[in-house]
Amino acid sequence: MENIAIWLQYDGSRYRGWQRQNGTDMTIQGKVEAVLSKMNHTKIEIDGAGRTDAGVHARGQVANFHLDTEKSLKEIQDYCNEFLPKDIRVFQIMRMNPRFHSRLNAKRKLYCYRIRKNDGYDVFTRNYVWQCDVEVSVSRMREAASYLLGKHDFVSFCTKAAKKKSTVRELYSLEIEETETDIVFWLHGSGFLYNMVRIIVGTLFEVGTGKRKPEELSHILQSKDRRKAGETAPAEGLTLWRVDYDEDNGI
Amino acid sequence: MENIAIWLQYDGSRYRGWQRQNGTDMTIQGKVEAVLSKMNHTKIEIDGAGRTDAGVHARGQVANFHLDTEKSLKEIQDYCNEFLPKDIRVFQIMRMNPRFHSRLNAKRKLYCYRIRKNDGYDVFTRNYVWQCDVEVSVSRMREAASYLLGKHDFVSFCTKAAKKKSTVRELYSLEIEETETDIVFWLHGSGFLYNMVRIIVGTLFEVGTGKRKPEELSHILQSKDRRKAGETAPAEGLTLWRVDYDEDNGI
Repeated sequence: MENIAIWLQYDGSRYRGWQRQNGTDMTIQGKVEAVLSKMNHTKIEIDGAGRTDAGVHARGQVANFHLDTEKSLKEIQDYCNEFLPKDIRVFQIMRMNPRFHSRLNAKRKLYCYRIRKNDGYDVFTRNYVWQCDVEVSVSRMREAASYLLGKHDFVSFCTKAAKKKSTVRELYSLEIEETETDIVFWLHGSGFLYNMVRIIVGTLFEVGTGKRKPEELSHILQSKDRRKAGETAPAEGLTLWRVDYDEDNGI
Repeated sequence: MENIAIWLQYDGSRYRGWQRQNGTDMTIQGKVEAVLSKMNHTKIEIDGAGRTDAGVHARGQVANFHLDTEKSLKEIQDYCNEFLPKDIRVFQIMRMNPRFHSRLNAKRKLYCYRIRKNDGYDVFTRNYVWQCDVEVSVSRMREAASYLLGKHDFVSFCTKAAKKKSTVRELYSLEIEETETDIVFWLHGSGFLYNMVRIIVGTLFEVGTGKRKPEELSHILQSKDRRKAGETAPAEGLTLWRVDYDEDNGI
């Protein structure tokens, strides 16, 4: 059996998220598994590095799967891109070590969250930004973000935390860029809990509008209480940008 | 009766084009007319500056209509944007002279056509570019384009030309930019015949791939024969970018 990893780009707008679900074929995992299974005439299951939610996009999702095949990597990639919907694309494919697992071996992830500022509505990017209609202070949000850097229990920034699993993660950087039309958040961390990026952005946004003070972020972390944090920002602004691995995983 | 002009942006992917048609409500004109008619409790018809085809986009379409209303311009714009689909947007509104007509008074139009080069497939812009898989020479296309500048009978570059109407148009400029991923054509002219931009781009593309010589463009113009020109480039790469008017149309 070969262990093959694929790098995926997708527009999540039409989908119920990454994870395969009963009762719908509109998941990214389901679509990719269906195409690979059809190609190989066997049932292929894939593991994804990040379980993106409904409406969330990816520019660098990674998934791996095991199969016996006489096809070349290029043939597998071309087959996928021929039969996948136009909003899902395999842009890289590699043969990996037998024990490589796209999620368990992921070292770091980079997420991008994009807010479109007032008056910047654009039909061409409407599904890829959170459309906001208020003034926000980027400097206040940057000050607030500084409290989140480093290793913390991020359970306050997590929806439906599993009780027995660790909710400690390390946030290496949280940068906020401002362009003429957008505010762009870049979060680079060891891993992210369920809804963690969207709750962080939603909370920072409330600091940016003046509803909260920057130093509250420290108290929210300490409280370990989801109700102390802000609203979950909408899915459409979020993109899984990149997953980092150690270099010794490929063959 | 007031004469009001609106500036529209739309993603044409889902639509059967600008022009109202029997048997479908999926036209841009139809959608805008339905919203304005609902707002005013009377039947409102609008005229558009350019009758974009199915799948063609706009960043600066202009349309005008006549109505009696006590609403302010801002209220009309907000009403449209509340009830129009998310892929159609009114971004500007003005009160015009009684005789202003968005198409008849248009002085110049700017169209943009975008080709995505090999290996640049991107799910986020898939509906806004022509995805090409071959090498093209931009310098050959620029040379070919030079034959088209100025005032000509462009009937060879027109689908279904009406026999009694003039097919003479003036092309002020045709610029071709090359970026890392795209080739972008900018066509600025007095007006454009049906499919003219797409046939020009399709023909220049054939020069770019080496199928034709640049100087053929001169012969194609002279032939006044649609069959001498190249294939019509796909709709999705085309955007009506801007319509220019004289300054004395507004109130």
